[in-house]
Amino acid sequence: MKPIGVFDSGVGGLTVVKELIRQLPFEDIVYFGDTARVPYGIKSKETVIRFSIENILFLLKQDVKLICVACNTVSSLALPVIKSHFRVPIVGVINPGAREAVYATQNKRIGVIGTRGTIKSRTYENEIKQLDPEVKVTAVACPLFVPFVEEGWTKERAVLDVARTYLKPLKRACVDTVILGCTHYPLLKPVIKEVLGKNVTLINSAKQVAIEVKKILSTENLLNSNRRPRHKFYVSDNPEWFNSIAERFLASPICKAKKVNNV
Amino acid sequence: MKPIGVFDSGVGGLTVVKELIRQLPFEDIVYFGDTARVPYGIKSKETVIRFSIENILFLLKQDVKLICVACNTVSSLALPVIKSHFRVPIVGVINPGAREAVYATQNKRIGVIGTRGTIKSRTYENEIKQLDPEVKVTAVACPLFVPFVEEGWTKERAVLDVARTYLKPLKRACVDTVILGCTHYPLLKPVIKEVLGKNVTLINSAKQVAIEVKKILSTENLLNSNRRPRHKFYVSDNPEWFNSIAERFLASPICKAKKVNNV
Repeated sequence: MKPIGVFDSGVGGLTVVKELIRQLPFEDIVYFGDTARVPYGIKSKETVIRFSIENILFLLKQDVKLICVACNTVSSLALPVIKSHFRVPIVGVINPGAREAVYATQNKRIGVIGTRGTIKSRTYENEIKQLDPEVKVTAVACPLFVPFVEEGWTKERAVLDVARTYLKPLKRACVDTVILGCTHYPLLKPVIKEVLGKNVTLINSAKQVAIEVKKILSTENLLNSNRRPRHKFYVSDNPEWFNSIAERFLASPICKAKKVNNV
Repeated sequence: MKPIGVFDSGVGGLTVVKELIRQLPFEDIVYFGDTARVPYGIKSKETVIRFSIENILFLLKQDVKLICVACNTVSSLALPVIKSHFRVPIVGVINPGAREAVYATQNKRIGVIGTRGTIKSRTYENEIKQLDPEVKVTAVACPLFVPFVEEGWTKERAVLDVARTYLKPLKRACVDTVILGCTHYPLLKPVIKEVLGKNVTLINSAKQVAIEVKKILSTENLLNSNRRPRHKFYVSDNPEWFNSIAERFLASPICKAKKVNNV
């Protein structure tokens, strides 16, 4: 009956929560967004690991049965370290997304877009190569996408301009599948589709992450059945900003987040 | 012979350091950029105050003789609290910028642009009204400007598009003077000028801040004379990112920043 713990640097992880709620409708969820220190995307590996450990310690205090790292930057930079530190099962977003992309590609050319930290780590590239060494991966950082999404600019000409610049290497590489390697990017799907064309498959890891979580809970006999779930949201800064944009990410009304100290 | 302490949420404060070096060429400077928690612009007053106190405590350990808050968000949200807490003289960027703008305006219509935190606080508005109650102030938040500057997008059509949208209320209000109420914005001067027209005066507080610092040091008899100064730069995250963009803000080569723990 314990809750699933989910954390992210801020608000983006809610696109993963949305999918967890859809696929695991009887599970309690505790979400933590580190809004006092958001974003993580430009920060170093050491700092991202330090912040992640603090976030996990907070979730463990909420007595969670599994932790879902709903952030590509954390999953890229910190997953091996945090998995080795803690007993609780920890699920990241990289491996599920990589698997889905390898399954989807026809021409064995996959594109990856994400924050600077995610792309620089080459974690997606390594995961994909392990699954299929023949796949050619083209990875590009799109650091302006997160601020655009957070400001609610998802259709304007400026976003389209920026997307055209960022995505040029993916077009040139003729990828047929692109991993949306940041939990904010699903909100830019229409713009990305417009630039890349309708025949390119866009992979949102969230669905596969929820499948993975379900599989682990089922194997460990930890799944809940028919009951009314509770979803709690915590943040490290004043929740005003989070509450004001959370609904767009969750695509449903949110019970207001509460401020807590995670350090 | 003690150094001047300067802090900012990240890299923007270097535009103030640039002016301090120009006007106070014999002074040692210790700069601290809180790059592990950057940006402050969307964060709450309580959190910005907490971070600022931690930054000041770090600078006090460096035995500084004066602290310059080279960040508009901190100056707007935290200055009264931190001034009341500490003995060391603390200079913010709001009052000097406001004074310069009131001096410059001919038609008594001033525009202010800044982060969400700065604009929401109405600190510029209150300062200007105290200096001249007849001035009409139009203030708008431009949250996408900081990410654009940090990514080095300062001339592209996308920035111009965003600037046109943001600055519309200032054009409509017929302001003849605009305060660049964020230390990043001086790097967008050409774009802002293109949108607002050549007859609008853009105020960069940095110059006035340096004048203010000089005045205080001179009054307290703390000014250094003819000597070779040392400038030290510290950051709270791995310095790679900071070092890679610092030169653009300082407009001169930087001695590499060092990582320290400020908390």
